[in-house]
Amino acid sequence: MKSVVVDPSTYDWEGDRPLRRPSARTIIYEMHVRGFTRHESSGVGDTTRGTFAGLIEKIPYLVDLGISAVELLPIFQFDAQDCPPGKVNYWGYAPVSFFAPHQAYSSRRDPLGPVDEFRDMVKALHRAGIEVILDVVFNHTAEGDERGPTLSFRGLDNSEYYMLEADPSRYANYTGTGNTLTADHPVVRRLILDSLRYWVEAMHVDGFRFDLASVLARDDAGCPLSNPPVLWDIETDPVLAGTKLIAEAWDAAGLYQVGTFVGDSWKEWNGRFRDDVRAFFRGEAGSVRRVSDRLVGSPDIYGHEEREVEQSVNFVTCHDGFTLNDLVSYERKHNEANGEDNRDGADDNRSWNCGVEGPTDDPSVEALRSRQVKNFLSVTLLSLGIPMISMGDEVRRTQRGNNNAYCQDNEISWLDWGLVRQHADVHRFVSLLNARRLLRDMEHERRRVSLNQLIRHATKAWHGVKLGQPDWSDQSHSLAFSAELRQDGLCVHVILNAYWGPLTFELPPSGDTGTGPWRRWIDTSLGSPQDIVPWQAAPALSGRTYGAGARSVVVLFRDEEAPAV
Amino acid sequence: MKSVVVDPSTYDWEGDRPLRRPSARTIIYEMHVRGFTRHESSGVGDTTRGTFAGLIEKIPYLVDLGISAVELLPIFQFDAQDCPPGKVNYWGYAPVSFFAPHQAYSSRRDPLGPVDEFRDMVKALHRAGIEVILDVVFNHTAEGDERGPTLSFRGLDNSEYYMLEADPSRYANYTGTGNTLTADHPVVRRLILDSLRYWVEAMHVDGFRFDLASVLARDDAGCPLSNPPVLWDIETDPVLAGTKLIAEAWDAAGLYQVGTFVGDSWKEWNGRFRDDVRAFFRGEAGSVRRVSDRLVGSPDIYGHEEREVEQSVNFVTCHDGFTLNDLVSYERKHNEANGEDNRDGADDNRSWNCGVEGPTDDPSVEALRSRQVKNFLSVTLLSLGIPMISMGDEVRRTQRGNNNAYCQDNEISWLDWGLVRQHADVHRFVSLLNARRLLRDMEHERRRVSLNQLIRHATKAWHGVKLGQPDWSDQSHSLAFSAELRQDGLCVHVILNAYWGPLTFELPPSGDTGTGPWRRWIDTSLGSPQDIVPWQAAPALSGRTYGAGARSVVVLFRDEEAPAV
Repeated sequence: MKSVVVDPSTYDWEGDRPLRRPSARTIIYEMHVRGFTRHESSGVGDTTRGTFAGLIEKIPYLVDLGISAVELLPIFQFDAQDCPPGKVNYWGYAPVSFFAPHQAYSSRRDPLGPVDEFRDMVKALHRAGIEVILDVVFNHTAEGDERGPTLSFRGLDNSEYYMLEADPSRYANYTGTGNTLTADHPVVRRLILDSLRYWVEAMHVDGFRFDLASVLARDDAGCPLSNPPVLWDIETDPVLAGTKLIAEAWDAAGLYQVGTFVGDSWKEWNGRFRDDVRAFFRGEAGSVRRVSDRLVGSPDIYGHEEREVEQSVNFVTCHDGFTLNDLVSYERKHNEANGEDNRDGADDNRSWNCGVEGPTDDPSVEALRSRQVKNFLSVTLLSLGIPMISMGDEVRRTQRGNNNAYCQDNEISWLDWGLVRQHADVHRFVSLLNARRLLRDMEHERRRVSLNQLIRHATKAWHGVKLGQPDWSDQSHSLAFSAELRQDGLCVHVILNAYWGPLTFELPPSGDTGTGPWRRWIDTSLGSPQDIVPWQAAPALSGRTYGAGARSVVVLFRDEEAPAV
Repeated sequence: MKSVVVDPSTYDWEGDRPLRRPSARTIIYEMHVRGFTRHESSGVGDTTRGTFAGLIEKIPYLVDLGISAVELLPIFQFDAQDCPPGKVNYWGYAPVSFFAPHQAYSSRRDPLGPVDEFRDMVKALHRAGIEVILDVVFNHTAEGDERGPTLSFRGLDNSEYYMLEADPSRYANYTGTGNTLTADHPVVRRLILDSLRYWVEAMHVDGFRFDLASVLARDDAGCPLSNPPVLWDIETDPVLAGTKLIAEAWDAAGLYQVGTFVGDSWKEWNGRFRDDVRAFFRGEAGSVRRVSDRLVGSPDIYGHEEREVEQSVNFVTCHDGFTLNDLVSYERKHNEANGEDNRDGADDNRSWNCGVEGPTDDPSVEALRSRQVKNFLSVTLLSLGIPMISMGDEVRRTQRGNNNAYCQDNEISWLDWGLVRQHADVHRFVSLLNARRLLRDMEHERRRVSLNQLIRHATKAWHGVKLGQPDWSDQSHSLAFSAELRQDGLCVHVILNAYWGPLTFELPPSGDTGTGPWRRWIDTSLGSPQDIVPWQAAPALSGRTYGAGARSVVVLFRDEEAPAV
């Protein structure tokens, strides 16, 4: 490893500025720079495949998909050798520097190359209306434990940069990776702030997702602090004001702070959204009440303080774990390729394989899997909060059942662009969902209404198959929900049927307000292109009930201004 | 109170830069901007008396005295009405703003006037080789408790800026002044840093003395923190690097951190130097051992870590308490003028009036007082650490026994320049002490030797009246000390005789090194100009003993290069 000093001030930004997209109009696409275009099927040229430049070529795909922000897996220079022997670290959670972009993600070989190519990418994404969020790792470094290499911090001042055990030849390990940075140390704290400011000021980044952010809430001795200085520094820094700050609000040593992470404006990866929505659609008992909270911004988690509506980042899958396709195709992890006899990776996946473990030619299983994928995407994208989808889930990317592909720099991890045609229906489904989501009412954001206030004042009702009679029992597998959005003159009715058979749901009457008939926007039990239709083309329904297919999501609406059918 | 927005960037600094004087070549003069020249005897013109401009006129006096830094009592805009009814707050520990210079200290009335006049003063002091240290108050404001006025912070966000009691209508009071700023709060922390940076960047200030600094070590609930973020922020801030940071390492609620204040480079007001040196020269039992530690940088206090030699700021008097003249003229405080029936102010002063309470015409008492004054000044200026002397002590300024003159904006507090002639001998004594001190060996600073290392490797010896036999007993009142400074080829022999009669001390033999005879630099029992002589004019002594007068300090030396006699 070598260092090079560059002057980053010479870059021509051509007037680029941060986009500052409102949280209520944000859809995050979690992606891997290399994995996005590395596959031969990407059609990107040999020299730029798997680089920032390659990503630029594929921006039209992202625009078409309708996401508003990319969240890039770590792009700080990392040590690809921070891995078991014979493997490579593909994900990149092994930082060597907090300032340099990862050299291998650049098609250029000159010293300023990676810096400028990264900025070309940011500028191009901004031009396309897409924000750039970085997944940043400030909880540990690639220097590992006492057996690891000495790359920089260990040689500069081992006991100041790292938490040590009582026996100072050993490293405290709150991160599961061998070492733990002393984020509370005044010098490390300053280093972290300098890094974040650099990525905002010199690189025009729009936000950050903090890997194992709860580690940053520990003091030098590893004890959780009630007011961790570094987290308050980040939240109150003038340069960082307006950037999106997202915490992975737990660590690898038992600290779990979802709902209790410090500060006033941090957003959080909502791990309970993932768990509860998975449980609901695989038919677990006792999951209806929990999924109802997830739909409306998780007030059971975030309601104890008056916080913004979008504190919750809602996701069902991310880089770590099954892809969405594999979540509905595998009941067990299949990590043999990782070389640890399938011992690595999580065992608790709350997945359901729809009857067959792995790929199948059975069209009914395949159809069910696509329907389940659409169910998950619907709930993720319709719930209050910031939705996050994972690269390729919109085209059913598979990792062949591998739920821990950190070391798989190959076709297991890379996006196969052939899937875009193969699963065009899923891709279309996500695009139409996104397009409508970005148009939705933002009155609460303009008026700075908190989640609690929004829920308290919303005109809404929970239902079961009968109106006003939701079934909250443990044996229940379905729920309906209607909401009236007064500003828009819009009523929405959502039916979630995770039951293994069809159910007939009563619909609210049209009432006296002359809002016209219910119209069907989404029904995941229908084949494409009926599964979702363009908002303006939604067909009117007659009758006072709706027959929801087995394991389906239905979204109906009626509008004061009746749409053109 | 009103605010005005000014553009401070237009000032012409004419190349002024911080002086960055080494700690080992620092002598602090604690002074009050207004009190310095407000007295008619100052000879300063009517319009500038008591202002920054007035201070500029008197810089030649400071140069002549030989101090290297002025430490200004608070010059942030303060509320002179933060005081009992009918009084004015003279000292200024009642900040209203952390950015504006106190308007009444400026002779100019235009909005930028106080800002620019302050900078004129800094520039002029720097040209004279004198640093500017500010006494800063970040522990409370002039808004007082629940009965106080609302000036700014209380109206902005009462519960964020101030520590409140469990009953939030009441203020926590760790400062003895009614309220306590939440220095640990992330926004207040940033405010403090912004203020300090402003005074360094825009005003060219060289350092800060933090009033009740231990308050800044408390968390929002008032509990002491082991790693207070704001104190580490200050210590590690790049803009503040190289400035002198001095803590008053205690507060008004029981926290006493002399020797244990956080950080690596903070200096501390050494309250124990004051107490122990006072005890020794008034003849208290059991004070010899303690004063021996004070002479060599207080290793009993500062030796538990490898810290710099000059961590201790040594002083016998400061603005708060008796002046040096009053310390040797009064046994009791005389604060009747403060209007609280003499209840205010400290009762434990360790003072001795030399036999008469207050002024006297008895020449023997007067001579003894001058001798005691010189004893105190000698020990302050000869001990390891940074010496601090208080405005006017060099000419025996009196406050008529008032030891708490915070509200005395009158002749009780102002410097009477007639004293310069009246006590020319004391003034000369201090000037010659300072001149020599600033020339002394700084090898330890160049080599970054810690206090412990310096003491361990020094060639030194403690003595009593007999060589090598110091009397550490409780009944002892004298001590001698010899040190060989190899780099300089210099030996120094110090005799402290606090006994009420003369004592004859054995002197170390001249030895074989041909360093010549002992020469007498200081003997406070002798009349001026024999009490101290210019270094190069020190007379040689014969004989193997020295007769030290009652209550006197004697300093002898011998030099390889025999000085011209």
